[in-house]
Amino acid sequence: MPHQNLRDIPAWQKLTRYAEAMNQPEKHLKNLVSTHDRIEKFSLKGGGIFFDFSRQRVDATAMDFLYELAEIREVRRKFDSMVAGEIVNATENRAALHTAARHFSKAPILVDGEDIVSEILEERDRIKTFSDAIRSGKITGSTGKTFEHLVVIGIGGSYLGTEFVSTALTAYGNARIKIHYLSNVDIHNFGRIVTEINPETTLWIVISKSYTTAETLANAHQAYNFMESNSLDPSKHVVTVTSKGSPGDDPTHPILQSFYMFDFIGGRYSVTSAVGGVPLSIYLGYEIFERFLKGAWEMDRHSATAAIEKNLPLIAALISVWNNNFLQYSAQGIIPYASPLSRLAPHIQQLNMESNGKSVSAEGDFMEEPTGPIIFGEPGTNAQHSFFQLAHQGRPFPIDFIGVINPQYEQYQAKSRGVTNHQELWANLISQPAALAQGKADDNTAKHFFGNRPSSTILLNDLSPENVGRLLSFYEAKTVFEAFIWGINPFDQFGVELGKTMATTIRNEIANKNKNIDHNFDRLDSISKFYLTTLYSGEL
Amino acid sequence: MPHQNLRDIPAWQKLTRYAEAMNQPEKHLKNLVSTHDRIEKFSLKGGGIFFDFSRQRVDATAMDFLYELAEIREVRRKFDSMVAGEIVNATENRAALHTAARHFSKAPILVDGEDIVSEILEERDRIKTFSDAIRSGKITGSTGKTFEHLVVIGIGGSYLGTEFVSTALTAYGNARIKIHYLSNVDIHNFGRIVTEINPETTLWIVISKSYTTAETLANAHQAYNFMESNSLDPSKHVVTVTSKGSPGDDPTHPILQSFYMFDFIGGRYSVTSAVGGVPLSIYLGYEIFERFLKGAWEMDRHSATAAIEKNLPLIAALISVWNNNFLQYSAQGIIPYASPLSRLAPHIQQLNMESNGKSVSAEGDFMEEPTGPIIFGEPGTNAQHSFFQLAHQGRPFPIDFIGVINPQYEQYQAKSRGVTNHQELWANLISQPAALAQGKADDNTAKHFFGNRPSSTILLNDLSPENVGRLLSFYEAKTVFEAFIWGINPFDQFGVELGKTMATTIRNEIANKNKNIDHNFDRLDSISKFYLTTLYSGEL
Repeated sequence: MPHQNLRDIPAWQKLTRYAEAMNQPEKHLKNLVSTHDRIEKFSLKGGGIFFDFSRQRVDATAMDFLYELAEIREVRRKFDSMVAGEIVNATENRAALHTAARHFSKAPILVDGEDIVSEILEERDRIKTFSDAIRSGKITGSTGKTFEHLVVIGIGGSYLGTEFVSTALTAYGNARIKIHYLSNVDIHNFGRIVTEINPETTLWIVISKSYTTAETLANAHQAYNFMESNSLDPSKHVVTVTSKGSPGDDPTHPILQSFYMFDFIGGRYSVTSAVGGVPLSIYLGYEIFERFLKGAWEMDRHSATAAIEKNLPLIAALISVWNNNFLQYSAQGIIPYASPLSRLAPHIQQLNMESNGKSVSAEGDFMEEPTGPIIFGEPGTNAQHSFFQLAHQGRPFPIDFIGVINPQYEQYQAKSRGVTNHQELWANLISQPAALAQGKADDNTAKHFFGNRPSSTILLNDLSPENVGRLLSFYEAKTVFEAFIWGINPFDQFGVELGKTMATTIRNEIANKNKNIDHNFDRLDSISKFYLTTLYSGEL
Repeated sequence: MPHQNLRDIPAWQKLTRYAEAMNQPEKHLKNLVSTHDRIEKFSLKGGGIFFDFSRQRVDATAMDFLYELAEIREVRRKFDSMVAGEIVNATENRAALHTAARHFSKAPILVDGEDIVSEILEERDRIKTFSDAIRSGKITGSTGKTFEHLVVIGIGGSYLGTEFVSTALTAYGNARIKIHYLSNVDIHNFGRIVTEINPETTLWIVISKSYTTAETLANAHQAYNFMESNSLDPSKHVVTVTSKGSPGDDPTHPILQSFYMFDFIGGRYSVTSAVGGVPLSIYLGYEIFERFLKGAWEMDRHSATAAIEKNLPLIAALISVWNNNFLQYSAQGIIPYASPLSRLAPHIQQLNMESNGKSVSAEGDFMEEPTGPIIFGEPGTNAQHSFFQLAHQGRPFPIDFIGVINPQYEQYQAKSRGVTNHQELWANLISQPAALAQGKADDNTAKHFFGNRPSSTILLNDLSPENVGRLLSFYEAKTVFEAFIWGINPFDQFGVELGKTMATTIRNEIANKNKNIDHNFDRLDSISKFYLTTLYSGEL
């Protein structure tokens, strides 16, 4: 099917024209938000969470055009195809079935004619059994001691999602078990972690789909050396999460157990698979992990079934496209007013930017319109005291605010200025979107606020495992809906290949130099040669 | 003095025209970097670090126009004025003397006719004496035990710089003393930290210039309650860093000691003052803190004395303005290939976005040109496996790569694929800027890389305290040089005020409701009322 240029689509053209209307003074957000039923009309509940887009620069007409765009781009059909196991990742000839990882029914999902549900459920059972055995001390390290440290060796999609969830759910953790992330090949990452663990009580979880990821193998290699230098038997301290039959699933190299990743779940969508399942079930307990899956599953059901005008992730995606392509914002902030969500932004940064930072359509035509924005964020209120100066008076960018109605640690009710910490947090959560939207005129120009800066607010009842799962699934669905609207493939990542290829060349040069100190770097371009010479000289 | 519109400046006009030339195919970075002396001509050493701008989209002509711009904007004179203690922060009628905080000479610096050097040196002496006494156990908590946990209560500029430095220098830390950051008013932050400390061995360091920061007071209040509920005497467990005579320096509320902040050092520039000095000297030892200051001082001297074409932070600032205003990039990535620098990007995010995210000139005229970009980043190689898909094939943005020649933890020399972890890291540090610059044509459009994506590379000899100080000072000087080129005030932050004012209104409403449950929220706009009602209802 040839790529349809977005600019040829009537709804796209209407939106382009309507964006000009929205730039008129009467459509300033301060006017839009002042209508009495704004919040009722521009907010929704669904999948267990609440989504308020009343402070986005939209009105009923803009939304109608956006719904028309969703219709013509057949995004719900595409989502159904994805969930049903069709080959939606055409460039890699794969399905994209992260939703199946949190499937709680035995209804078959066919990939190439074969049901994949049973193997997913079987893997979950193996995770349950194994994590229970580790937590109870039934499986111990080689000196017979119960495990107390998990070191997750993995990078990118084998790391960020799990870190997000483990940080969000720390309060559910077992005080005895600590989790560490060895993602970076930088030796400082390894060097630091080994000062924080007890080798005898450490379980190393090595996660790599292909088991060829350079960073992960280098770190696993350091870990093996470290265990051996501590007279420990690595086969009693290592577990892998990898593709069946990969070098990490090799019976000639015995380990405690291998868990399996499937071709049809990509790294950045994999936290609900064994990638997150193994470390999170050991750290939090399998029951907590399953509650997290159930939350994600509920939001998946919502995304798959809710009508366009009632579908939270789809509306969030439409607004993202509106902000990006029609109102010309190039970045997007994610500001959770909840410190346990401190690693949400880095996870969504990967999820969204790796999925949608693309230059070609799914059919392989170069895009004429910009695709995914830059995503960044830190928790609020911290962000207010960091970069919100720019958010209010500098270069505008849309923001997702995230609030939690009921905090953990309810024992701390001491009041300052008449309010609890949680109420103070909410006073800010309420005020910041309002201030950004409304602005405030001032004769002192340095104190003048133009306003008209858009944001959404997402609310969760609490930071339960279910709600963390819902939030994860919300952003996953939003990401793929955006891609479906743009007509790009959110499941491949060919953009990371060139750097890898060039790194292989440099690595080989270094390996040659390590073998033969007389090896020179004359084969390389002058800049690369300069850097390698500097590295070997040991000083600037 | 009336504001001179940037577009009326001849050098600005030349740069505008020349940017068109740089957009021509023959000026593609793949061509620029292929000249044999590119790296020699477009890189510099100074202030103890190395700065390579050979992969920026500049040639000799562009640089000449930029130097002309620096000349006409009198940026070196403005820097001299700043360092000399003149009132460069006109809107707040203050000097901006963060450079004085790392002054190592007794030569006077006059502010309003009074020398401020002696009080700075005196404060440093007090920090030395106090931190030595805490570390040696001469000063203990109220039950006589040596302090083992520091909880830094502070937000924004009272937090991010110290967190960056303590993370960067963890390897120099005292294994006995742990540092925690209680920045967010979110009760999860407090609730989590108190599970990680021993109350008897905890020193709380409360940092707020005015001692009226809502978040900091709320957290300090929780801390006092917590100490009392643990039968500890807060006067033996609290130290403050604040303005002389503030509510945090009140003799009727005895504490271990107060350290002083000065009007002429702004929060985001304050890590070399007592703000960083107290926690870092206790955590790392005063000698390490002083080495950090000496590195910053060296770079300050470079920034103040090097000619325009030899001045690293100034050239970095010129390139930032070039990328921002002429090549139209709206964001900037900071990617340190060193995991201890994991909190560099959040610190620079504050430093730069709060300083330069402005809409008015120093004279109060609305700017017609964009000012500071969005800053974000994560360490490499992690970032490669996260958002570098977008960096290579999506929306382009310039990047600062940062490399370290000599790592800590040199005992780990195990090789994977023939190279050590540190060499693998460098293979990537060398390859990524090259791949971004050069690109690679491919008939398969999904594998096509347009290239021409700019970056700089900064090298440090190692992660010594001195080099962390140099890096900090480099970014501080770059930030103020950018502001001087744009003609904005990088030292005020009126953009954070509107949100604070509105939060006060909401806080008062909540406080009234806390006092009288029948209080309703009818005074508020319908959206704020909706949120408060939801908060009190306890569920969505």
